[in-house]
Amino acid sequence: MRLARIATPAGPRHVVADGADWVVVEDVFARPLVRTDERHPQAGARLLAPVEPRVVLGMAHNSGPADRQLPPQAFMKSARTVVGPGDPVRIDPRRGEVKVEGELTLVVRRECRNLTPEDVPDAVLGWTVGNDVTAVDQTPLDEKMTQAKNGDGFTPIGPWIETDLDPRDVAIDVDVDGVRVASSSSAGLAWDVVEQLVYLTSHLTLGPGDVILTGSPGTAATVRAGDRSDITLSGIGTLSNPIV
Amino acid sequence: MRLARIATPAGPRHVVADGADWVVVEDVFARPLVRTDERHPQAGARLLAPVEPRVVLGMAHNSGPADRQLPPQAFMKSARTVVGPGDPVRIDPRRGEVKVEGELTLVVRRECRNLTPEDVPDAVLGWTVGNDVTAVDQTPLDEKMTQAKNGDGFTPIGPWIETDLDPRDVAIDVDVDGVRVASSSSAGLAWDVVEQLVYLTSHLTLGPGDVILTGSPGTAATVRAGDRSDITLSGIGTLSNPIV
Repeated sequence: MRLARIATPAGPRHVVADGADWVVVEDVFARPLVRTDERHPQAGARLLAPVEPRVVLGMAHNSGPADRQLPPQAFMKSARTVVGPGDPVRIDPRRGEVKVEGELTLVVRRECRNLTPEDVPDAVLGWTVGNDVTAVDQTPLDEKMTQAKNGDGFTPIGPWIETDLDPRDVAIDVDVDGVRVASSSSAGLAWDVVEQLVYLTSHLTLGPGDVILTGSPGTAATVRAGDRSDITLSGIGTLSNPIV
Repeated sequence: MRLARIATPAGPRHVVADGADWVVVEDVFARPLVRTDERHPQAGARLLAPVEPRVVLGMAHNSGPADRQLPPQAFMKSARTVVGPGDPVRIDPRRGEVKVEGELTLVVRRECRNLTPEDVPDAVLGWTVGNDVTAVDQTPLDEKMTQAKNGDGFTPIGPWIETDLDPRDVAIDVDVDGVRVASSSSAGLAWDVVEQLVYLTSHLTLGPGDVILTGSPGTAATVRAGDRSDITLSGIGTLSNPIV
């Protein structure tokens, strides 16, 4: 299934794709999903960030096999940095170089703590495209990454969630202003998504709508104001955002 | 003014103290505050965390004058760790020693970015008691503090917000099971609350209800399951939580 969140005259609505329409659902986190009678044509619908997370986690040093020699580690991003498709990523010229990072992004379905690998499928709503924007010059100044990770619009997610994706080898392509600048796959992650969720939920409780940016396996690219970032994940789609 | 959030039969409500009653307000972040006709006796009212923050920040290494030799630095805590007066702090025996930290806690009133010192009074709703619970054995394993700071119930705040407090020299007393184990003052913070808010909003946008745990000037104490933590700030009150 493809799940999204769209703007409607009555406010934002969680929806599921059905032919050429989006169909409003009662509770996007429920299984089975209950559809309402409200439909909106997909053509012309404005897509929002597909969820509104309370907790946004990113995996640190999770870029390739060598990183597996370190234990997994995560940083937290402000929920206020989350934006949707087409929303601007705002660069602050005082903060130095900024990179976009294309990442397979896990969306949590239910409250979860101390998960086992077997629990993971039930705990995951689905997968979306995430852009873990980073002010890279701030990282050496602040190893907690609070300064590097939390500019306005620094966590675009979308355009929608795919529920039936195999996360083990998802191709990730990053284009800046229409030029392909990075290509990789989630297969290159040091710690895979199941290991990540088991690790994270051993330390903190996650809940419906929380997101995990699973790591950047060579999918970072420098951007400047005026650029457009397009991140494409095979089996999901393309997340596009202007850099301003 | 004293502002709180209480449980009512119709759900949680933001309230202001008026004699022996709590009076429900329309929008706790508005100035001037608009009161409704709905009143509840303070006696017997169940107090909740006085706000539901989207962003919870704690100041790192902000415990005394020597820490001023380092630049200010902050970590983020999960909004899901926030609990109210009387709610349990849950210790995970696998994670080693746990300390409570009594801290003057700033509550943000409005969206703010790039504040100057002159902007701070308008940006602050008021002050509450915060307990920045920390699994201290995790800190050397994870300098980002994701493992140390995010156990269930690890951010008690309350019992209410005082709007008319001078934050420069607030006495902080920490009792464990009725025994005084630490006494200090916000005057001992390396970076004061105005400097903190200017620093933080230069890197990220904060908004209504966000909280900043301003640092622990010698106000940490080890706790064990079965203990009760009481943190008292002069001019505010006492925040009590069981450790389970």
